[in-house]
Amino acid sequence: MMGLGQVSIVGAGQIGTMIGQALMAADQSWGVLGVGLLDRDPAIAARALALGGGDRELVGMDQVLAADVIVLAIPVAGIVEWIERWGARIPPGSLLIDTGSSKGAVVAAMERMIPAGAAAVGGHPICGSESNGPSAARLEALRNAPFVLTPVGDDAHALALATRLVESLGALPVTMAAASHDRVVARSSHLPHLVAGTLARVSRGSGLVDPSARALLGPGFRGATRLAESDPEMVASFLIANTAEVTSALEEMVAELTRLAEALSIGQGAVADLLGEGAAARRELLGAPR
Amino acid sequence: MMGLGQVSIVGAGQIGTMIGQALMAADQSWGVLGVGLLDRDPAIAARALALGGGDRELVGMDQVLAADVIVLAIPVAGIVEWIERWGARIPPGSLLIDTGSSKGAVVAAMERMIPAGAAAVGGHPICGSESNGPSAARLEALRNAPFVLTPVGDDAHALALATRLVESLGALPVTMAAASHDRVVARSSHLPHLVAGTLARVSRGSGLVDPSARALLGPGFRGATRLAESDPEMVASFLIANTAEVTSALEEMVAELTRLAEALSIGQGAVADLLGEGAAARRELLGAPR
Repeated sequence: MMGLGQVSIVGAGQIGTMIGQALMAADQSWGVLGVGLLDRDPAIAARALALGGGDRELVGMDQVLAADVIVLAIPVAGIVEWIERWGARIPPGSLLIDTGSSKGAVVAAMERMIPAGAAAVGGHPICGSESNGPSAARLEALRNAPFVLTPVGDDAHALALATRLVESLGALPVTMAAASHDRVVARSSHLPHLVAGTLARVSRGSGLVDPSARALLGPGFRGATRLAESDPEMVASFLIANTAEVTSALEEMVAELTRLAEALSIGQGAVADLLGEGAAARRELLGAPR
Repeated sequence: MMGLGQVSIVGAGQIGTMIGQALMAADQSWGVLGVGLLDRDPAIAARALALGGGDRELVGMDQVLAADVIVLAIPVAGIVEWIERWGARIPPGSLLIDTGSSKGAVVAAMERMIPAGAAAVGGHPICGSESNGPSAARLEALRNAPFVLTPVGDDAHALALATRLVESLGALPVTMAAASHDRVVARSSHLPHLVAGTLARVSRGSGLVDPSARALLGPGFRGATRLAESDPEMVASFLIANTAEVTSALEEMVAELTRLAEALSIGQGAVADLLGEGAAARRELLGAPR
């Protein structure tokens, strides 16, 4: 089996740095020959390198494109733009993979742009937190984390290469069609991002500017709104790339909140029933409470 | 200054047990002479006693009513019912306080029922978690936690007594009108409880029954839905006791989610602006990101 060779990472934020750290720490049997980083902000690339996210800073896209594996770890809009501008130049035998949270638009761009002989797969590691930047990278978050791979066409060789990359990171490859991925994450991730900030905005509008009222903000509020701390541009980018599904998810949320308002007008039993359904749904999805 | 004397706690769940533990651990200068527990489920009372939540189990309401301080740590509907049934029998000089998450209905019942000479104050410690029962009690959660006190009428003596009790627990008394409390918690706590279960229900409806799709449930989903694990009857009880404000909060939430759907149809900048407002609101309310 051939080694992974030279890896280029575009974007040295939380995810790019984490992947770089994992590759730098990978057993030599994976054949990682080097990990170069490129970020539009050189200070961020330097910080990621200092944290062990790579072994050198790349200068310009020619250096990025010379690698055996190219990882795009930038917001989704940037990923699609990158593929449209540079995708045709992926060398034969090399692999292009991204880490964006919406996959339909990325896979469609890959299908249009990647030349025959080069490999491309959409990727989405499920390990990010609401924190941003290289210092938010935690190598252990990638270990055993699901890493979704969304195939481009039916290129089995590309999928095998991407699977090997994911395994070298210590993550768990999960193959899924881009459309299925986007339908599910619209509800399980994109909607929670929208809801977190909305909860904070609704609370701010209710007299919480009074300092004594802030005492009422307990651990429940803190946890329920934590995703609001995510980088707005990054989140807006994956939401817009998944507009149709996210809009449906918002409509479903509004319909269910309206059902709750109706239950409130009926009485405690009706409310408790819907709350019980919510608890049951969470346990069905996650297993025992955590 | 007189000591707190004998304390009775009705309800040996998470909060009742935590308060009992804090009283048992309080410095003797607070003058706690004993902590009796009553729960409708004797096994729960026994478990709370084993965890240091009191020094004896109480049998029947006569024993509860013989104390100097009576703490009601049961769901809000039960608190109101208890006050209507037993409130007139609070002895002169004794203090009645509750721990419910909605205060208007509780304070109104106290105003109606508590005899002259007895003291009553509404209480709400901001330290609960989504876990239930005595074993979820964590004494350290009460230390420096805000403990809201909502006065009944203008009884300064009652408020002073309740403040002393809260201080003996190591918590921080925050005095607030019941109506202000209920307006704020409708948005900062009651709405997040409703939203958590709704997110879980919406996600379950999106193809997440497929085991491979469950890989997409990351730490963000887990955190955003955690409050759905709270006891449905307890939550329904405080929601119903705060129906008017919770209904308004739901309407505000629906209006803001609709604004987000509109922003999605406009473009990335409009979405990023609303997300940025959510992050700013959270920081304004909580301080630096946590």
